[in-house]
Amino acid sequence: MAGPRSPGEFELIARYFAPIAGRAGLGLIDDAALLRPARGYELVVTADALVAGVHFFADDPPASIGRKALGVNLSDLAAKGARPDGFVLTLALPTGWTEDWLAGFAQGLGVMAGEADCPLIGGDTVSTNGPLTLSITAFGSVPAGRMVLRSGAKPCDVVAVTGTIGDGALGLKAHGPDRPAWVGQLPEADRAFLTDRYLHPQPRVALAAALQAHASAAMDVSDGLVGDLAKLLAASKAGAEIDLDAVPLSPAARSAVMADPALAELAWTGGDDYEILCTIPEGEFPSMVAAAEAAGLSLARIGRVTAEAGNVRYTEAGRPRSFARGSFAHF
Amino acid sequence: MAGPRSPGEFELIARYFAPIAGRAGLGLIDDAALLRPARGYELVVTADALVAGVHFFADDPPASIGRKALGVNLSDLAAKGARPDGFVLTLALPTGWTEDWLAGFAQGLGVMAGEADCPLIGGDTVSTNGPLTLSITAFGSVPAGRMVLRSGAKPCDVVAVTGTIGDGALGLKAHGPDRPAWVGQLPEADRAFLTDRYLHPQPRVALAAALQAHASAAMDVSDGLVGDLAKLLAASKAGAEIDLDAVPLSPAARSAVMADPALAELAWTGGDDYEILCTIPEGEFPSMVAAAEAAGLSLARIGRVTAEAGNVRYTEAGRPRSFARGSFAHF
Repeated sequence: MAGPRSPGEFELIARYFAPIAGRAGLGLIDDAALLRPARGYELVVTADALVAGVHFFADDPPASIGRKALGVNLSDLAAKGARPDGFVLTLALPTGWTEDWLAGFAQGLGVMAGEADCPLIGGDTVSTNGPLTLSITAFGSVPAGRMVLRSGAKPCDVVAVTGTIGDGALGLKAHGPDRPAWVGQLPEADRAFLTDRYLHPQPRVALAAALQAHASAAMDVSDGLVGDLAKLLAASKAGAEIDLDAVPLSPAARSAVMADPALAELAWTGGDDYEILCTIPEGEFPSMVAAAEAAGLSLARIGRVTAEAGNVRYTEAGRPRSFARGSFAHF
Repeated sequence: MAGPRSPGEFELIARYFAPIAGRAGLGLIDDAALLRPARGYELVVTADALVAGVHFFADDPPASIGRKALGVNLSDLAAKGARPDGFVLTLALPTGWTEDWLAGFAQGLGVMAGEADCPLIGGDTVSTNGPLTLSITAFGSVPAGRMVLRSGAKPCDVVAVTGTIGDGALGLKAHGPDRPAWVGQLPEADRAFLTDRYLHPQPRVALAAALQAHASAAMDVSDGLVGDLAKLLAASKAGAEIDLDAVPLSPAARSAVMADPALAELAWTGGDDYEILCTIPEGEFPSMVAAAEAAGLSLARIGRVTAEAGNVRYTEAGRPRSFARGSFAHF
């Protein structure tokens, strides 16, 4: 029911998407792409949909949107211990889209695809009367039987997270149209850091092999540390004791919490971190830390798994702490 | 940025989507799903996005939308000679969605998944301020190196199509809100048949093995026979001679063309057929017809491939015929 418009779908694909496909580009000219996992490997598949006005601001830089769209899927693959193999993109372009926008989007997408060696292998481009909507399905490989699940956490395992927590949620506030008072009190460098962490999450692709070797369970933190830990523990039928003071915050996040102490809760529950939350048998933890450091990533111990299924005990400055709102709700 | 709402994503998944996943449901509770192609096989991947108001009417029966959404992807897999293995669904639900709608959608999706033995293996459900938008990535297997491409057509190969052409495009007119005069002249049974063909395309899953054995090139007809043949021939660097009188029309489509002879062009160019267009070496054609018949499908010879790259000569009643508008344009 859409009308003709130039340039057509084929020109767009050739101009903007073929460069991201590299030699994997069969799926851009045929109806379908091929995936050939190496012998003894199996494919991990993950999918995320992003909608303008829900998952990003429609006027965010298009390169940032492209980069993040693939990044959040690569983050899922990394958490499962998988090496990226490729991805499929479906893109619904809104009325009034421009080639400039598409060029920027493809540029950002291509940067992330290149960094992760994860080519575009196929997709579909359509028009929509609504907001720009995109869906990425990404593929990675793991040795057969070695995908890192959510469900493998065992009592006494160490609970750990990569990087720093809360920057994305604080960055969303610092970047969005309704900036709270504390944003104005932040040094410009801190505001810029948080905004960058929100716009440009760094999928921890380099940690995949270490997770596969040492982790009992893992997932990426996209909906908030507190809520995502609850999901991991539910899948593992376990509980945990977490020391909130051990949750790593960036200097910029610490500045924000200093300006408004209530922001600590946002940091712990807010989401958009794209760090890895994992559990590791105590005896493996030193090797895991070493492997993370070798990959250029910090890994902080924040607590331990307990046998009390469904019970997560948080302490802050030695006192119990509970959360009214666990994590970002999709509905 | 979406607010909380009950039932939550997890309840929705358990209630409506877990039954479609069957034993393949890991991806519905973990962040990712696993695919293990059998030894010696590789995976064919295809993706289609559908937007309410563009690819279907927002008030179409939800079960029809669910059935067709998976069906169009299964049609792509069949054309590539692949046996379905599973699919991933991302679903952006609009403001005001209802559980009734979702129940109907899941029911139709489940019927198609069950018929094709193609379970849901993962996905993502989000909210949108725009129209309902969904994206399906489907997976199938072929013996390594045996995917049927668009690019394999050779001069003198037979050009053939399954089933009947034009029902979907005519059905869209018969079903849509602005019904042309000819729709009123059709017997009710014919109108119902065409509408059903539009709403409920039948992916030719049963033809996959025969295509793999006998076809030199294939694709499904989604954007119109004339336009899709042009794409297949472009990929194959070949031309064709096509006898339009040999293009199979259903009795209902013939009634419509009788009522308005201009509708023949719509049938040939309109799209939404989800039949298989293929080329077959002359010596293989009898075996291909027999295999199609064994699968309960008719296969009509409509012309032959020529060496004149880019030149498709159509004849109707022995006279040359050309087309101003090749096929449905996505932009």
